[in-house]
Amino acid sequence: MITKEDFKYVCEKSIDMIEEAGILLTEQDKKNITAADFGLSRIKAEGVQILTLFDTDRMAAKILVLLPHQTEPEHWHPPVGDDPGKEEVIRGIWGDLTFYIPGADTMQVGFIPEGKEACYTMRNEVIINPGEQLVLPPGTKHWFQAGARGAVMYSFSTKVTDLMDEFTDPNIVRETKIEGY
Amino acid sequence: MITKEDFKYVCEKSIDMIEEAGILLTEQDKKNITAADFGLSRIKAEGVQILTLFDTDRMAAKILVLLPHQTEPEHWHPPVGDDPGKEEVIRGIWGDLTFYIPGADTMQVGFIPEGKEACYTMRNEVIINPGEQLVLPPGTKHWFQAGARGAVMYSFSTKVTDLMDEFTDPNIVRETKIEGY
Repeated sequence: MITKEDFKYVCEKSIDMIEEAGILLTEQDKKNITAADFGLSRIKAEGVQILTLFDTDRMAAKILVLLPHQTEPEHWHPPVGDDPGKEEVIRGIWGDLTFYIPGADTMQVGFIPEGKEACYTMRNEVIINPGEQLVLPPGTKHWFQAGARGAVMYSFSTKVTDLMDEFTDPNIVRETKIEGY
Repeated sequence: MITKEDFKYVCEKSIDMIEEAGILLTEQDKKNITAADFGLSRIKAEGVQILTLFDTDRMAAKILVLLPHQTEPEHWHPPVGDDPGKEEVIRGIWGDLTFYIPGADTMQVGFIPEGKEACYTMRNEVIINPGEQLVLPPGTKHWFQAGARGAVMYSFSTKVTDLMDEFTDPNIVRETKIEGY
């Protein structure tokens, strides 16, 4: 559950950050921004803001925003029906962004949200500077985090099947409830 | 055939325009830019500059640049093997851009390259302002043109099969030859 005040705050802050990053948004884009707390009810710590640019039956593009030190929980995109699972390419646009993927523990910049060691198991740290890209094949476990400035990035992908995503944290539910809705 | 001088000119000009549009390019991005004259040997009139951001087995993102009054010839993305054909989404970033797609003749802003009426048959004009998007389903005939400032746009798509593209102009060959290569 996100309170209405928090939802409004994180969305407005994210729009400001996207515009600060030099991206021109239409009025419709600004209305389309949303936020996900993954049912954890602490969006400023664990959550993400999402602006879907388009979403067809075959592919999608989103702008993702993390506020300062906000963390998107560890998850992966499993096969869905005939589809081998969502393939995703991240491109850094602005700010301080680190991804965590399979591989040796090289974590230096980021931090594990307090008391959540078991929910963030990937510790191979990839710093994504603006203009740098990371390809995430289907099934790749990943989580990501912003540093002190927050972060703005593109997520390009094959068909979006977000409600099928799987998470390491057993307390997560993918659908976000906003207070009063 | 593009002369080396023209190739260098259109690529450098395009990088300047992309950066003027506020997009941060890596040094590698700048090396990756290329130009296509579709074998017509008049790139400043009919051609396009292409910066591929990524290109996987399933999807791709490119930045396309048209110089002032440059026109990309009419073409479409046919089925390839099991694939119903490339689906493409255009998002305007900067400048003056018009697309021409199936539908009633509403052409007002653009022009048909001289003597080429038979090669540009789509006349339904769609003005793409920065931040506006156009979805082109597989098989949709389309061409596009820049106005006085030129244009910078994203092209997001399913798997790229550019060499399979079909063109209205019978003189077109998709592979671009650069003088001396």
